[in-house]
Amino acid sequence: MARCDELATLSCDAHTLTRPAYMPAMRAAHNRVSSWMRAAGMTVYEDAAGNLVGSYPANRSAARTLIIGAHLDTVRDAGRYNGSLGLLVAIAAVEALHRQERRLAAAIDVVAFANTEGLRFAPACTGSLALTGQLPKDALYAQDETGVSLEAAIREFGGDPEHLAQDARRPEDLLGYLEVQIGPTLEAQGQPLGLVTAIAGATHAQLTLRGTAGHAGALPMNLRHDALAGAAQLILAAEKIAQTTPGLVATIGQLALHPNAHNVIPGQVRLSLDLRHPDDDLRLQALNDLQERAMALAQQRGLQLTWEEVQSHPACTLTPTFCARLQQAIESAGCTPVALTSGTLHDAAILATFTNSAMLLVPSRSGLSHQPSEAVAPEAVAAAIAAVGRFLESL
Amino acid sequence: MARCDELATLSCDAHTLTRPAYMPAMRAAHNRVSSWMRAAGMTVYEDAAGNLVGSYPANRSAARTLIIGAHLDTVRDAGRYNGSLGLLVAIAAVEALHRQERRLAAAIDVVAFANTEGLRFAPACTGSLALTGQLPKDALYAQDETGVSLEAAIREFGGDPEHLAQDARRPEDLLGYLEVQIGPTLEAQGQPLGLVTAIAGATHAQLTLRGTAGHAGALPMNLRHDALAGAAQLILAAEKIAQTTPGLVATIGQLALHPNAHNVIPGQVRLSLDLRHPDDDLRLQALNDLQERAMALAQQRGLQLTWEEVQSHPACTLTPTFCARLQQAIESAGCTPVALTSGTLHDAAILATFTNSAMLLVPSRSGLSHQPSEAVAPEAVAAAIAAVGRFLESL
Repeated sequence: MARCDELATLSCDAHTLTRPAYMPAMRAAHNRVSSWMRAAGMTVYEDAAGNLVGSYPANRSAARTLIIGAHLDTVRDAGRYNGSLGLLVAIAAVEALHRQERRLAAAIDVVAFANTEGLRFAPACTGSLALTGQLPKDALYAQDETGVSLEAAIREFGGDPEHLAQDARRPEDLLGYLEVQIGPTLEAQGQPLGLVTAIAGATHAQLTLRGTAGHAGALPMNLRHDALAGAAQLILAAEKIAQTTPGLVATIGQLALHPNAHNVIPGQVRLSLDLRHPDDDLRLQALNDLQERAMALAQQRGLQLTWEEVQSHPACTLTPTFCARLQQAIESAGCTPVALTSGTLHDAAILATFTNSAMLLVPSRSGLSHQPSEAVAPEAVAAAIAAVGRFLESL
Repeated sequence: MARCDELATLSCDAHTLTRPAYMPAMRAAHNRVSSWMRAAGMTVYEDAAGNLVGSYPANRSAARTLIIGAHLDTVRDAGRYNGSLGLLVAIAAVEALHRQERRLAAAIDVVAFANTEGLRFAPACTGSLALTGQLPKDALYAQDETGVSLEAAIREFGGDPEHLAQDARRPEDLLGYLEVQIGPTLEAQGQPLGLVTAIAGATHAQLTLRGTAGHAGALPMNLRHDALAGAAQLILAAEKIAQTTPGLVATIGQLALHPNAHNVIPGQVRLSLDLRHPDDDLRLQALNDLQERAMALAQQRGLQLTWEEVQSHPACTLTPTFCARLQQAIESAGCTPVALTSGTLHDAAILATFTNSAMLLVPSRSGLSHQPSEAVAPEAVAAAIAAVGRFLESL
């Protein structure tokens, strides 16, 4: 818990916890986490994508490796547990082995992924995509707000964007993947730990509505093509589709106006759309319905609509045998886990297409996540460390 | 027309015309305009508020002064005529006198106001408010996006924020005020020039909706307090009130989301509201109705609403005798002017409470203003220069 507090001070912003990928605050976080990894008996390096890896060797050569992953980047104005807690639980579990001078039949790599949230570079999860050799080449051309490319950011951070493929893991070297994360909907069920059996599919799209800018005082209402008024209808249409489709969540989280002045009618609005559902067919149906609705309302208002898919990830099932093993570990640590489908795109969804994967959730207070008032119960964290320990022993 | 093109290159942004008050691009614009003023026989200085003044002396001492004002600051991604054209028409009219070596019974001060659009500092029209001794003290504490105060910006530009009051004009020294501006709704009436007889009242308010940020994938729709969804309803409510109240225009031109990430439910939205009507009672009624509607919808969604008035200006009538004089001048230049109420808050609305005021409009193509495709007909500009010349001769 104290380490979560400490990491939360490493931010690129004085007033909030905001730690985008490959920024100085991330370098500081890597340094801090590296020292904790070394104290837990791990050797530490950064891979070509700038993911931080702490390796705890097996008790024999030619052993396969279990990766325990979590992300160290945050959203803007983040809470201190999302991402970081899972990483520190993994280090604590390895540290317990190290204190007992125990090595296992498998090697353990604790990995802090570099750009999971995608705050600085979309698409999200570029660290785990690179680690599994799945990062599309053109993702390296993605730019942050200041025009720096992902490629340049990785290079400046000390990574090697030209050798991502060579540095990717091979499935045959891996035993599997485990991830610990906070889980927003467990508290209501009164259970201290959750077990993710599936991850919802997600679509992240970037929408642009173009109208005509004009003088706020001079142009009568009936002559306007106000891009923001069109966006407002789109926002409410997305909300309504999600409210009327059980299991669907739709979020417009990002919006940029041009020219964004109080006395000018908005000429252009760019907005993000994030749509998730455990059932891919229902997600794609909703996406299609919303797109039709958006085209119709744009046409009514004389606006131009462009619709660009940034990232799409199908729903995935984590590995049943690995989940069963994790369930046993949780039970032998004294808890009854709640099995659930996660609505969140975790790195585990990337790894699940690549190797055996399982995921453990620690409940967050009041279900709050991605915001400063995130909180977790220390007992639940202790239970998570114990459960990961049992899981490692079972390998 | 060429001078408008030339001024349009002086921008703080490489790709658009964006010239906020007191920035280096404004210094460059002052330098350019100063040279044209001097070539037109004027002596040039900047007043304590950083307004640029070109003085053309009268043919006798103790003469009163006619101010011809226009603004040199722009909105973001502006057109090249709003503001600048009126200034250059005034300089051209004085230049014509100068070429004939004529002086008039009145002195003429051509004034380029420093911060009329209010892009960098709200409230708008701080230059004319200072010139007329009406700038509230606390307006100097207004900050731009980077935290620089209006006071500091004026001082850095070479002005003297501590002596604004001493440098303000006295009504008894003035003969009156004339302003030339582009007018967006004249073209449909096929008339080359317009005559403003009144200016609509305006309210500029800053609204904030606070909800709860949260994870876009994890929080079900029924547990959300999405500030942007509330803002979307508010945007449409404002549009509807304006559409159903003849003469009312309502604009949400500025919007900022927090935290503004695609995978986070918006926790906070700040938005500007700009409401204008020629009838103050109807404007205030609409403002009240919208505020009630906003409070109701905020309550329904569990959002907090704050509503802060940034600036409010009553409707004003320009001086009938001065307008009649301008009408005669326009007619003697060969045009039949269209008399109209302007929806725009011009510096003339500030000066009208202080001295005789009149205002001439040059139609903008397709009614477009505050955006890059602004255009005016050279014949209309020539007619405006001639009309201002006749007006000056009538003094």
